[in-house]
Amino acid sequence: MVKVLHYPSAEADELLQKKSNDDDQVAGQVAEVIDKVRREGTAALFAYTKRFDGADVREDNFAISAEEIERAYGEVDATVLAALRRACENIRKFHEKQMRPSWIEPESDGTMLGQLIRPLDRVGIYVPGGLASYPSSVLMNAIPAQVAGVKSIVMATPPGKDGSINPYTLVAAAESGVTEIYRMGGAQAVAALAFGIGMEKVDKITGPGNIYVTLAKKQVYGTVDIDMLAGPSEILVIADDTASPAYVAADFLSQVEHDVRAAAILVTPSLELATAVQKEIETQMATLSRKDLMAQALRDNGAIIIVKDLEEACHVSNLYAPEHLEVLTAEPFSLLGKLTHAGAIFVGPYSPEPVGDYYAGPNHVLPTGGTARFYSPLNVDTFMKKTSVIAYSRERFYNTAEDIMALAKVEGLDAHANAIAVRLKK
Amino acid sequence: MVKVLHYPSAEADELLQKKSNDDDQVAGQVAEVIDKVRREGTAALFAYTKRFDGADVREDNFAISAEEIERAYGEVDATVLAALRRACENIRKFHEKQMRPSWIEPESDGTMLGQLIRPLDRVGIYVPGGLASYPSSVLMNAIPAQVAGVKSIVMATPPGKDGSINPYTLVAAAESGVTEIYRMGGAQAVAALAFGIGMEKVDKITGPGNIYVTLAKKQVYGTVDIDMLAGPSEILVIADDTASPAYVAADFLSQVEHDVRAAAILVTPSLELATAVQKEIETQMATLSRKDLMAQALRDNGAIIIVKDLEEACHVSNLYAPEHLEVLTAEPFSLLGKLTHAGAIFVGPYSPEPVGDYYAGPNHVLPTGGTARFYSPLNVDTFMKKTSVIAYSRERFYNTAEDIMALAKVEGLDAHANAIAVRLKK
Repeated sequence: MVKVLHYPSAEADELLQKKSNDDDQVAGQVAEVIDKVRREGTAALFAYTKRFDGADVREDNFAISAEEIERAYGEVDATVLAALRRACENIRKFHEKQMRPSWIEPESDGTMLGQLIRPLDRVGIYVPGGLASYPSSVLMNAIPAQVAGVKSIVMATPPGKDGSINPYTLVAAAESGVTEIYRMGGAQAVAALAFGIGMEKVDKITGPGNIYVTLAKKQVYGTVDIDMLAGPSEILVIADDTASPAYVAADFLSQVEHDVRAAAILVTPSLELATAVQKEIETQMATLSRKDLMAQALRDNGAIIIVKDLEEACHVSNLYAPEHLEVLTAEPFSLLGKLTHAGAIFVGPYSPEPVGDYYAGPNHVLPTGGTARFYSPLNVDTFMKKTSVIAYSRERFYNTAEDIMALAKVEGLDAHANAIAVRLKK
Repeated sequence: MVKVLHYPSAEADELLQKKSNDDDQVAGQVAEVIDKVRREGTAALFAYTKRFDGADVREDNFAISAEEIERAYGEVDATVLAALRRACENIRKFHEKQMRPSWIEPESDGTMLGQLIRPLDRVGIYVPGGLASYPSSVLMNAIPAQVAGVKSIVMATPPGKDGSINPYTLVAAAESGVTEIYRMGGAQAVAALAFGIGMEKVDKITGPGNIYVTLAKKQVYGTVDIDMLAGPSEILVIADDTASPAYVAADFLSQVEHDVRAAAILVTPSLELATAVQKEIETQMATLSRKDLMAQALRDNGAIIIVKDLEEACHVSNLYAPEHLEVLTAEPFSLLGKLTHAGAIFVGPYSPEPVGDYYAGPNHVLPTGGTARFYSPLNVDTFMKKTSVIAYSRERFYNTAEDIMALAKVEGLDAHANAIAVRLKK
């Protein structure tokens, strides 16, 4: 059973407070892995791959070959490949709308100021692997990089015990512009990408991973850039009595099948809906394969919060700042402006989370754990950087030299003032 | 004397390799400060302020009062205030051009996809203080936040021994939309901003600081967002024989007066220019106040690199990825497209770095230490975050349901497929 809490209450407040990702013990282990890979190179990297993934990876099979990718195309189902290609097209189309041009604006006295927006040279995308296959994660990381114009898109994904990578993952990489693929995972893969072990170093690492990957990304931050620090996945559903209990229940279950740490919260003014959703969860769960995992996640991190009205529901949602936010109300669009903190908002009855996870176009790499207050979904900007351009004309320079020297002097920097003064001499 | 190196050479390669910011011993001290402030609150914060800044700060004088700001207006020079206001206007105008609208695009079958771009709620800006006064740092951090629409802009700056804050810093804060100012600095200030000690917590911390501030920002990254990790300041000048040796020398000196760790590099095909610049440096340095500091910085981190042509100069500059890049050549604009990694590019003889440091409009908070490969200047995006919007119509949903279920199933997630299937039932 999913617990029912009333808002405001101490229990609801506690639930809405996110826990931090910090884990000193794991952080220490991760630091050791990173340091060893950095110092000892591929020998350490391959030793960790043997230890953590059970696979024999060597210099000669570290990179995925063109033949392996070709073979993967022979192994995937044609219907799935066609669906994957349509998903690629949607994702590409959405991310193309995020592109912005560089600009340099000439002013009447000859001065030009501007901002160049250009792609990063080389990025690393991390895709979880092992037994499971996450072709959608490949698309969601690689396509924005490709749209941005990144030349080298390097994918790291942990191999299975036999050294293999799932064929759907390989096909997804080929379809979305990945230029190099390496058999490696965990903190050791993050270290290899950041310090250029077994390959050239990258400029930025993106993509979700487990706690080891996340803490490794934090530790190499600064040596390279990273997208964000991700934690367990979560959904918050705002619904009124017009919502279908079957839909809400199905969306709860789709969220919690990921992980026992995944969270699902319904915020509603309707006690009747709350009761009906609980019943539907039991009915639907019985038909699904990951029952035990879902039951535990719902018990630990599931909740229904009863509020007095939809206004208060928006307030509660903003406190939680959910990764995924579904709005299943009579007039969902009227709430959009009030929902200030969320990774992605799924509006209306025909936008369940899997629509966005796989297909619609917006990115599924989203801020978790309340970080939607300050992080954004992965997007084209993630793979670009800006450079300012300042070209003062002689006229502008002469007209403003006194101001600039006055400001330099008040900061006590007379060599700054001198750089202006020397240009005034004749 | 500034050393002269030829490119390519082992010495030039070594110089172009940036050193990392990592310092395990300092990182340990910083972690202790953060942990203590987080656990013990303002008691620890004020104790550190006493210890590191020598100032008595208590609950009742922690925040700067309206009266203190009013008093500061009485203490500043009218000419400087007027210059500061013109700088504000330029900075505001430039950053307003970086604003982008949210968009939601309706498609013909009723589906709507979009991206909301909205300001952060509350940000902390760090401004170095103590004896010096950096009003320009206040403007460069606060104005982009103000343009973005951030409601609460909190400034932290370390007090002098007597607890005072420089009046120019206070006036700059008032002119640029800062809403709260607290007397605190160092790692303890970063901890207070991130965990809400003595005030409400912020969502993001920006602004440069010393190594303690930088490492503290790295450690709280994830609890809050940060702008970037900054190191010592640097300039790279590309010049040919049309450049004025006096200008290049002045710009070298303005860069190295900041800090003994500041770096200045001239890249030129002209040996004649190299010799003339060295002479000019000696002459000009004799007239300036921070001679010893500048001489040491030039000896340690100054260099002239001789290249065969301007094409190679661009290549060398891209390897270094400088924070500030000046182009003093006959046709500087023709090189812009080749200069792929730089924080800001100063084009032509009338754009010395101080023009951008104080006045022109583009931001002076720039990526250092080679991080211009992946970081951007502080900008309006720094203070905004995105939220995706997905509103599928019934028609789109029915037309794409099979694709979405196929992709869910290939990832082994049958509860995801169920969230689609349950909506197809009637």
